[in-house]
Amino acid sequence: MTPPTLDFWFEFASSYSYLAVMRIEPLAREAGVTIRWRPFLLGPVFLSLGWNDSPFNIYPPKGRYMWRDLARLATRYGLPFQVPSKFPRSGLLAARVALLGAEAPWIGDFARAMMHANFADDRDITDPAVIRALLAGLGLPADALLAEATGEANKLALRRQTEKATELGLFGAPSFVTPDGELFWGNDRLEDALAWVRQPGG
Amino acid sequence: MTPPTLDFWFEFASSYSYLAVMRIEPLAREAGVTIRWRPFLLGPVFLSLGWNDSPFNIYPPKGRYMWRDLARLATRYGLPFQVPSKFPRSGLLAARVALLGAEAPWIGDFARAMMHANFADDRDITDPAVIRALLAGLGLPADALLAEATGEANKLALRRQTEKATELGLFGAPSFVTPDGELFWGNDRLEDALAWVRQPGG
Repeated sequence: MTPPTLDFWFEFASSYSYLAVMRIEPLAREAGVTIRWRPFLLGPVFLSLGWNDSPFNIYPPKGRYMWRDLARLATRYGLPFQVPSKFPRSGLLAARVALLGAEAPWIGDFARAMMHANFADDRDITDPAVIRALLAGLGLPADALLAEATGEANKLALRRQTEKATELGLFGAPSFVTPDGELFWGNDRLEDALAWVRQPGG
Repeated sequence: MTPPTLDFWFEFASSYSYLAVMRIEPLAREAGVTIRWRPFLLGPVFLSLGWNDSPFNIYPPKGRYMWRDLARLATRYGLPFQVPSKFPRSGLLAARVALLGAEAPWIGDFARAMMHANFADDRDITDPAVIRALLAGLGLPADALLAEATGEANKLALRRQTEKATELGLFGAPSFVTPDGELFWGNDRLEDALAWVRQPGG
């Protein structure tokens, strides 16, 4: 029997995606669930809702709360965290690379390295040099991957993937979609989504 | 030693407040925490964020998700639930009554009865007759309470309470505020808020 799967929709710019990216692999392993990494861009999704920026910036009380909530959760999970000096940082290039490697064995390591750079080390993940260095640090052919990631075919694939997110009803990240079509939104629904995959209906 | 307290900000129109209202008393008892009931109105808070309706109505994908999420959570908690035929229903009159009884021994029973009427029985909680019947069912002097609830002093008190919510940085409901000023937002943070009260810093 093939193991059950869970589609994991995430965005490198998204603060709560940071928590989910760092947590998902051990939890999925424990649950016996295979994760299908689905990088996408929140920008177009937010635009379709009428937001031209992160709602955490558009609605300051939500933003202030989010950073405090994130700090508390990072402490609980034992994750390093600092409020990035710029938020959100576009996850476009990182998502293009991640889409290219979505089925590759290095996707988890790459996603964690990028998230750590943004939300723990306050590094500029929009800088190709930062991404190149992280890829190289994983022993990957950084230049070849960046070239392919920014090729027309892959750009188009990420655009399609983001359209697919909207079609699935996603409106934020992280989001989890089960094989039977249940949508779970938010880092705090990760455990629920894994449990649903193992036993639909809970 | 007086038991530690947790301020519980809720709104009768709010779907996730339904879950928290139904769950909070047994959890607080178990945690040894005294709940201070803080009914307020989300309408003015949302207006200050630029929303003239529930964000679940303004952003349809969020609304669709919310109802599904609510149904799943109600199942998990063993709570009855049906999508109300009208949403949101103004919690104004119910909140006025609840504010009047916020320190009274009947506040929990009243809040649960109102929430059950709205989210399980699909009854019109804006109808004074519905509220009167529920109060009478609790053995309370319904007419006298409704008269006092709609008196000028109590109307003003609810307005002040709602202003206080905004001053505290609240932007949604349910919200929980600890004695040391930590804000937790959402039914899914109820357990976290109780744990924080017992041991600040988690």
